[in-house]
Amino acid sequence: MVKIDLNCDMGESFGAYKMGNDAEVLKYITSANIACGYHAGDPSVMRKTVELALKSGTAIGAHPGFPDLGGFGRRNMNVSEEEAYDLTLYQIGALYGFVKAQGGTLQHVKPHGALYNAAAKDAKLAHAIAKAVYDLDPGLILFGLSGGELVRAGKQIGLKTASEVFADRTYQPDGSLTPRSQSNALIEDDEQAVNQVVRMVKEGIVRGVDDKNISIEADTVCIHGDGAHALAFAEKINQRLREENISMQSLK
Amino acid sequence: MVKIDLNCDMGESFGAYKMGNDAEVLKYITSANIACGYHAGDPSVMRKTVELALKSGTAIGAHPGFPDLGGFGRRNMNVSEEEAYDLTLYQIGALYGFVKAQGGTLQHVKPHGALYNAAAKDAKLAHAIAKAVYDLDPGLILFGLSGGELVRAGKQIGLKTASEVFADRTYQPDGSLTPRSQSNALIEDDEQAVNQVVRMVKEGIVRGVDDKNISIEADTVCIHGDGAHALAFAEKINQRLREENISMQSLK
Amino acid sequence: MVKIDLNCDMGESFGAYKMGNDAEVLKYITSANIACGYHAGDPSVMRKTVELALKSGTAIGAHPGFPDLGGFGRRNMNVSEEEAYDLTLYQIGALYGFVKAQGGTLQHVKPHGALYNAAAKDAKLAHAIAKAVYDLDPGLILFGLSGGELVRAGKQIGLKTASEVFADRTYQPDGSLTPRSQSNALIEDDEQAVNQVVRMVKEGIVRGVDDKNISIEADTVCIHGDGAHALAFAEKINQRLREENISMQSLK
Amino acid sequence: MVKIDLNCDMGESFGAYKMGNDAEVLKYITSANIACGYHAGDPSVMRKTVELALKSGTAIGAHPGFPDLGGFGRRNMNVSEEEAYDLTLYQIGALYGFVKAQGGTLQHVKPHGALYNAAAKDAKLAHAIAKAVYDLDPGLILFGLSGGELVRAGKQIGLKTASEVFADRTYQPDGSLTPRSQSNALIEDDEQAVNQVVRMVKEGIVRGVDDKNISIEADTVCIHGDGAHALAFAEKINQRLREENISMQSLK
Repeated sequence: MVKIDLNCDMGESFGAYKMGNDAEVLKYITSANIACGYHAGDPSVMRKTVELALKSGTAIGAHPGFPDLGGFGRRNMNVSEEEAYDLTLYQIGALYGFVKAQGGTLQHVKPHGALYNAAAKDAKLAHAIAKAVYDLDPGLILFGLSGGELVRAGKQIGLKTASEVFADRTYQPDGSLTPRSQSNALIEDDEQAVNQVVRMVKEGIVRGVDDKNISIEADTVCIHGDGAHALAFAEKINQRLREENISMQSLK
Repeated sequence: MVKIDLNCDMGESFGAYKMGNDAEVLKYITSANIACGYHAGDPSVMRKTVELALKSGTAIGAHPGFPDLGGFGRRNMNVSEEEAYDLTLYQIGALYGFVKAQGGTLQHVKPHGALYNAAAKDAKLAHAIAKAVYDLDPGLILFGLSGGELVRAGKQIGLKTASEVFADRTYQPDGSLTPRSQSNALIEDDEQAVNQVVRMVKEGIVRGVDDKNISIEADTVCIHGDGAHALAFAEKINQRLREENISMQSLK
Repeated sequence: MVKIDLNCDMGESFGAYKMGNDAEVLKYITSANIACGYHAGDPSVMRKTVELALKSGTAIGAHPGFPDLGGFGRRNMNVSEEEAYDLTLYQIGALYGFVKAQGGTLQHVKPHGALYNAAAKDAKLAHAIAKAVYDLDPGLILFGLSGGELVRAGKQIGLKTASEVFADRTYQPDGSLTPRSQSNALIEDDEQAVNQVVRMVKEGIVRGVDDKNISIEADTVCIHGDGAHALAFAEKINQRLREENISMQSLK
Repeated sequence: MVKIDLNCDMGESFGAYKMGNDAEVLKYITSANIACGYHAGDPSVMRKTVELALKSGTAIGAHPGFPDLGGFGRRNMNVSEEEAYDLTLYQIGALYGFVKAQGGTLQHVKPHGALYNAAAKDAKLAHAIAKAVYDLDPGLILFGLSGGELVRAGKQIGLKTASEVFADRTYQPDGSLTPRSQSNALIEDDEQAVNQVVRMVKEGIVRGVDDKNISIEADTVCIHGDGAHALAFAEKINQRLREENISMQSLK
């Protein structure tokens, strides 16, 4: 049976600030990427999100980002490889503490936002992140952009990796994502987005913006958790994958 | 043979800001309390300080504080018990990651500054901190003010604890520290400070400000790591303890 | 004609985190307390909130708080008088810059949350805050709890002050607010809350929890801006004050 | 008489962390760039540094940087133009408050570190910063790299500008600084550094790394304030400029 992991960013509230609808979204996903306090999240949010994920049986991952709460980790920061290693290890360790304290297991690590994007392109940065993950626990799974440097670095260092694809993003002929700055970056039609996922999962193919097919590895699909529409889409893709007899399951 | 642990706060540098003389002080102590990024320290400083401690064979502890870098964790913050649990677990987890990545073992946890002081007096806060430590790893040793609530809470929850005494602070008749706001809070004479330690360790007695003897439990002595004088004092107390045939050793 | 100022906290969003419904609430108030980046708000939010307030003709005030974004400035921090002076001046200056850049005028300063509460009780802290306000601009109006130390300190130093009352809080026989920890702290019935305001404004009297009348000075009423109910209440109190021929106007 | 301004970064301490030797360095400079709490400095440090500068009669400038205390503002952050405008205005306003409270005048603004470097190359970012300065007070002087985009943007918007040169950096044939990543970026010999300054000031010429002369505008020279050597160099350049009959004076 064909299978796929559905992941979503979680635990992005901070203090008095609420974001997302974690309890609801957890019903439709198989892996939760929990923010670690640098770009979003705080210790209390982390504890509660770990609790929610364990209750729902969703696999737990750390979601480290740049130390930029004001920019939600979406602004690239020119950190050194050493700094990237250190800030990744710090954040994973912090989340690991909450998971261990509750008797759970940390399944994966997926960098957030600008750190994710930079790690997809910069081999040295990717290596630093992969090494931090490996050094904490070589049994962790490293999530990265399908075809990107982070997945490559993870494999090289001996980690199990998960190639991530996107439901609502268009792809360039070389398999990279169309930059958000371009008008055709997003797939706004739900049906089309779900179709793209089904094809990536079943056939390993995505149609690029030039209408030619590209092969693509798809271990996990990223679902967005905030925005009014997020929950409806999560439900929709869930239902369709069931109809297509695609098994949704985490990667452990 | 009588024995005692000497502990010192470490890893308090932050980014471009340097503090303390960790590499030197490590020669004279047996337990290092490493700051965890909330009141001091950052991921890179944490990694490097763990490296230094492992190299020197010094036992490693987490040194969590209030989230108040601007106040160096010395200003009391009115956090809830839940927040105290969460911020303690977060910081211990983060340091645990660096220690695990380098193949070391985390020996103990000692709260910092205003959190330490509050936990010595407030039984509920003390319980929250002790529970965070226990939940992460019941094998950790909890350091607290000798005779204070934190040691009591640690014992109650099932942790091994270490009663901490101070070389350069005077004691009230009830065994508490003379508040720093009072003029006679500090022992400025090195000889007198060292004598106080030797007596606490050998006889379990400290002379209070009223010149009467108080019994006191002394498992570990706090040595200060910053200030021009710190290193000289560390050396002095070290030598004297050797002369007195008191074995300096960590608590594991 | 009897008159009153209606003030509300504004500009409490931060980065990707949204809070409150400022554009709507501005229709119903006469003074906006704009967060200054320490407990809430960021430079972009500050600029946009100043724009909104100027457009709506609402008087602008600075709303400085403790440096505690994670606790939304609601946790008391044990700062020194000097630190209180400095952090107040810093935040007012920052907001002053945005107001000046847009050609507006800063009307008032109202401390936030735990800083507000501490300044109502601690005369020394109150003096430090009042002095910061006075030193920046002696023409500013200082908002504080009616009958509290901050108003007293402001008058003493030569500032114009505004005594603040609350629509939805009950009062103790001594004129202080019933602590939130007590079950009868809040007035949940809108009608009753509005009645309390009308009476405070028209008669200078509030009925205490012991059902006896207390005299109270009321220059400005605090309206809450977040929560689903906030906007409806703002509209309701607005309408009622108009019906009672009470003029709503800022204090300049 | 030929004249030049000597500027130095100041007020870079933070909380318990000390940096630089401001009181001493102030004897040798004419303009102080005071950190504003984002990359360094805090409200108390700002107040005290303004006091020191006013006492010594040194002109005061704001030294805004990226919100990156952990990286000391030296890591480039990919902020939008709007964010650059906002964070600049916030920081200048905050310092302006301290200067106004002490009866002084703000002379200039000089961006720090990575923000300075980015503003020298990126015309849009430079415009955003210049606009923030102009909007706060069109009488402020904008400091930027000689020949760079920030000086250009400042002039265009109607600000007085100061072209900054460096004593201890080498110059490329196009007048830009040799990147620090290259081995010949720094002039380590004091005599050579001082000679370079004298020539830039007197003749408007600097010798590039290719040994050819380049014309360069020099209104102000940057002196470094931290490091063991800083004070000695400040004294040396001061003495030499006096010997050369070059008047050291601020730009107001």
